[in-house]
Amino acid sequence: MMNSDRHKRAVEELTKIAGEVYDQLDAGRIPKMTIPLRTKSNIRFDPKSAVWKYGKATGARSAKKLRGAQMLLRTMYMLEFIEDMIKNSKSSTLREMYYISEGWEKAKFTAQDESNMLAEDLEIITACMREDFKLRPEEDGARVMGNITIQETDRKGKKKRINCRDDVGDSGYGIPYNVEKEKIEFVDCDADFIIAIETGGMFDRLVENKFDEDSNAIIVHLKGQPARSTRRFIKRLNEEMKLPVCTFVDGDPWSFRIHASLAYGAIKTAHLSEYLATPTAEYIGITASDILNYDLPTDKLNDRDIQALNSEKTDPRFKDQFWKHEIDLMLQIGKKAEQQALAKYGLDFVTDTYLPEKLTELSIIK
Amino acid sequence: MMNSDRHKRAVEELTKIAGEVYDQLDAGRIPKMTIPLRTKSNIRFDPKSAVWKYGKATGARSAKKLRGAQMLLRTMYMLEFIEDMIKNSKSSTLREMYYISEGWEKAKFTAQDESNMLAEDLEIITACMREDFKLRPEEDGARVMGNITIQETDRKGKKKRINCRDDVGDSGYGIPYNVEKEKIEFVDCDADFIIAIETGGMFDRLVENKFDEDSNAIIVHLKGQPARSTRRFIKRLNEEMKLPVCTFVDGDPWSFRIHASLAYGAIKTAHLSEYLATPTAEYIGITASDILNYDLPTDKLNDRDIQALNSEKTDPRFKDQFWKHEIDLMLQIGKKAEQQALAKYGLDFVTDTYLPEKLTELSIIK
Repeated sequence: MMNSDRHKRAVEELTKIAGEVYDQLDAGRIPKMTIPLRTKSNIRFDPKSAVWKYGKATGARSAKKLRGAQMLLRTMYMLEFIEDMIKNSKSSTLREMYYISEGWEKAKFTAQDESNMLAEDLEIITACMREDFKLRPEEDGARVMGNITIQETDRKGKKKRINCRDDVGDSGYGIPYNVEKEKIEFVDCDADFIIAIETGGMFDRLVENKFDEDSNAIIVHLKGQPARSTRRFIKRLNEEMKLPVCTFVDGDPWSFRIHASLAYGAIKTAHLSEYLATPTAEYIGITASDILNYDLPTDKLNDRDIQALNSEKTDPRFKDQFWKHEIDLMLQIGKKAEQQALAKYGLDFVTDTYLPEKLTELSIIK
Repeated sequence: MMNSDRHKRAVEELTKIAGEVYDQLDAGRIPKMTIPLRTKSNIRFDPKSAVWKYGKATGARSAKKLRGAQMLLRTMYMLEFIEDMIKNSKSSTLREMYYISEGWEKAKFTAQDESNMLAEDLEIITACMREDFKLRPEEDGARVMGNITIQETDRKGKKKRINCRDDVGDSGYGIPYNVEKEKIEFVDCDADFIIAIETGGMFDRLVENKFDEDSNAIIVHLKGQPARSTRRFIKRLNEEMKLPVCTFVDGDPWSFRIHASLAYGAIKTAHLSEYLATPTAEYIGITASDILNYDLPTDKLNDRDIQALNSEKTDPRFKDQFWKHEIDLMLQIGKKAEQQALAKYGLDFVTDTYLPEKLTELSIIK
């Protein structure tokens, strides 16, 4: 990955943090860092942007206590490691950084949670993204199929134009971990909307049934709870190519959350909701009404499902009439269904009947 | 996917099964099907081919009892479903087939295990592969990076040439679920060996460090326990392009099994070992000796690890001196290590030091 202004800004922001700690030490004060409190009570649903954000409560990480001092020391080591990576055009997984810290002596992490958390803290303080620090997760990127041409700047800095339908095999284009402008540019696109799909089986079904061509759609595989790069990729397509987004997932409380995190953000990434969330995304996954209307094969809700549905009843992301009704109905019938359950009516039912009906209802297709 | 001689043969073999059942009924006999016993005791390590195979014990599935009759009925429905798919150039996930059976009345499956098992039974009886029946798993294909040009016949029958280094983004070429000759042909390849890698983080590390270019390697991501298509892809590359294969995995008993299943086959797919297994594959994953020699960060073996190591001591796939020594040593030191633990010495240690040392030792590079 090549460096860009975003990486330069990241270095500046990180240097600023180190500078502040240095200044405090220089003035004979015990150094400390101020960061927003990362507790559930400090996360609020912002009605204006329709996404989740951190509130105004902050906490201080002071070197007065051993634990705080150790965290500050780790922060300093981490700043240096990130600067080195940016200088050398390298990147690292969060797991590798954890092992790299073996060489940091007293600042060594004792569990991966600690290093992941510190990476998130730095995102919050600097308002940069982990990707700007050259830190990436283990997760695989998802796949894309449809008539969009992207330009990817590859590891050697070479620009490659790839049409996500004509230049790839049937498994589609693999989304890289960094999808910011210096890595991915959208060159050309002939599509009416994006359909984001939970399971690989359903992605392959739509690809085999040529749903991308017949319905002028971009098909994106979410792979369960979507990775940050997948959410950001969809967000950018939505904003820059003006494509409406719909999510097609299983009909159970966990899949409702997949939709909500794509549309409104997740607690863990509340500081990045404006980068990652697509609040206009429409739900076209399986609903309790679908289970009844289409007489779908179902499984019984288990205790964890029921608990999750009840907790969604107080989740601001599910507060409108549609969700109130569907969550209550699901609790009432006590059943859930997978998206592949539509195969009850044959392999083409989903593309010939179900999706056209749902998409017309939402005016996504005419 | 287009049809080929393999699909024609699959239809013939399936018709033969239906024919036999019909003939038995016509002669006034209670129909039955004979299949190899799929018990662990009927699997043996075949020293000649160095892979796992079924033995000669067989069992009969007779319609005398209700359960047997139901299985025969299901088989007939499934034969028809498969024939239809082949006729219409469609394919189906195993999950979709399970839901399709909703329309089979008395033959409806009550759990996915039943339908998966029946698909495997048909593979064994016909000596065809699930892929010949147009049945595919949910699993995602793995990724490939390196200087090999493949020709993929896409869903529309169009032949596409894709170089897995020059024509793809940094996430590589995605292996489709069917990798047989009518779908994938190897056109051209300039590489000395294949390195199959357990984790996505390490795959991306080797890609970022340009290990494919610098060491003339094809890098394949296994994604944990590899899918059938990944094993078959590697097997074909090994045989047709004469490329040696090495597996680079974590240092724990579960990763030893990933290597063993790639090299010698797995119990679940013992009837397909000759198609899937690459018995000449060399292990270059983390060993107990590596943990000591490179002083790697480790985790303690837990009870399940210890149990797994002990059971590997009687597994014929681990019977040579190398494995005897390494398994005993791991039990003795009581520790395991991840492949990313090599990052202790920096992000380039794996490609600059560890892999060259291991590959030279095994004479894979000179």
